[in-house]
Amino acid sequence: MAEITLNADERIDQLYSKNIQIIQSPHVFAFSLDAVLLGAFSQVARAASSQIVDLCAGNGAVGLFVSEQTRGHITAVELQPRLADMAKRSVQLNHLEQQMTVLNTDLLNLTDKLAKDSVDTVLCNPPYFKNQPQSVKNPNPHLAIARHEGTASLDQIMAVTSDLLKMNGKAYFVHRPERLDDLFQTMKTHRLAPKRIRFVHPKADREANMVLLEMIKDGKPNGVRIMPPLTVYQADGTYGKEVHQLLYGN
Amino acid sequence: MAEITLNADERIDQLYSKNIQIIQSPHVFAFSLDAVLLGAFSQVARAASSQIVDLCAGNGAVGLFVSEQTRGHITAVELQPRLADMAKRSVQLNHLEQQMTVLNTDLLNLTDKLAKDSVDTVLCNPPYFKNQPQSVKNPNPHLAIARHEGTASLDQIMAVTSDLLKMNGKAYFVHRPERLDDLFQTMKTHRLAPKRIRFVHPKADREANMVLLEMIKDGKPNGVRIMPPLTVYQADGTYGKEVHQLLYGN
Repeated sequence: MAEITLNADERIDQLYSKNIQIIQSPHVFAFSLDAVLLGAFSQVARAASSQIVDLCAGNGAVGLFVSEQTRGHITAVELQPRLADMAKRSVQLNHLEQQMTVLNTDLLNLTDKLAKDSVDTVLCNPPYFKNQPQSVKNPNPHLAIARHEGTASLDQIMAVTSDLLKMNGKAYFVHRPERLDDLFQTMKTHRLAPKRIRFVHPKADREANMVLLEMIKDGKPNGVRIMPPLTVYQADGTYGKEVHQLLYGN
Repeated sequence: MAEITLNADERIDQLYSKNIQIIQSPHVFAFSLDAVLLGAFSQVARAASSQIVDLCAGNGAVGLFVSEQTRGHITAVELQPRLADMAKRSVQLNHLEQQMTVLNTDLLNLTDKLAKDSVDTVLCNPPYFKNQPQSVKNPNPHLAIARHEGTASLDQIMAVTSDLLKMNGKAYFVHRPERLDDLFQTMKTHRLAPKRIRFVHPKADREANMVLLEMIKDGKPNGVRIMPPLTVYQADGTYGKEVHQLLYGN
């Protein structure tokens, strides 16, 4: 712990269910329920020889969350130097230097650094919103990049995902339901067959505000499975049983 | 009632919630929960000038179920003479001859009979399974056509749907979740933007076995809404409140 330096606006948050500590900053990007649910939904390759890549990794939360599910190597890829630096220090904080590498690079150049057709599992919590001129962006550029497709479109991210994956490798994405048509279109374009899909509803009687997707490179079409819905809050406003378990371990 | 003839294997079933009577036969095709849920999910055009078309209409159940929601005209299109005849007699049975017409025709020739870009609402409960050589088909040809894409593929049905609809007209389909990738692909191909989607789960903790889709011709992309899930049975095996209401009206 003595070697880890926290900047003035940073704090250490803990995911109690996994005993993982993550350096966060409200001024840059803090991990959210999306990352916790993506980690829990993902069935990452487990063998020591497995290669797992987390794209748009932010402060590294998703990679850190799945680290205990696998003996394979995790590469977290993040464009923004400030976030990549936080991810590197979180890796140290959790003593995962042997298992996890942080690459501060543009994912559009990623196949210069990671071989095509070499990855078993890709994880991604991408920017949710299309980068359209009329969309109101966050004046903080760190947050704007994390939330808007400023640097990589969904199509580009799916292309890189497909390039990286071995045949029958799996990818896991979390996204917004309103983009489902774009998601299906870009999966199809890039040889990724949708497999398990789970929708997350804030309450049982509300529309979904999150979708978790499993896809298989060169998988068979017409095999989509819609899993039981995940409901975040109970009617009384407290966390539902499953989400409570994921956050607190009980 | 005196004019309606029932064949030996036919019976009259009633949807109590709507006071609609439907001629059914276990040897041909009986309406199922799919038709009830599609009728309830659909927001058909209401004005007296509206044109509503029910494709793959079977014994006419979906069109009959939505008849009380609209003052417009409903055309039920069914290829199989035996089913179209049952639909015609059900129309008489419910005294809906002024509002509802049954066309015994192949939907692939439909734009010879109904003008393109003239329809406000298309409803469809299509065959669910691809007509692949290895699929085990029902030896009863009436049931095989109703369940398998023997005569019209999903792509062909979507093409006819799009041809018929006015710009911004709406279509409502019920289908199987495993076909979601084909559904999104064919909607995209035929200028139908997915809008509201609702998944139907047999129980709260089970995968969905039905999907209800609303699409808009030439609608904007990236506007998908995933509605709260519909759960058919409660944990104790009795109908959930919403389904009970749809079946029995209370």
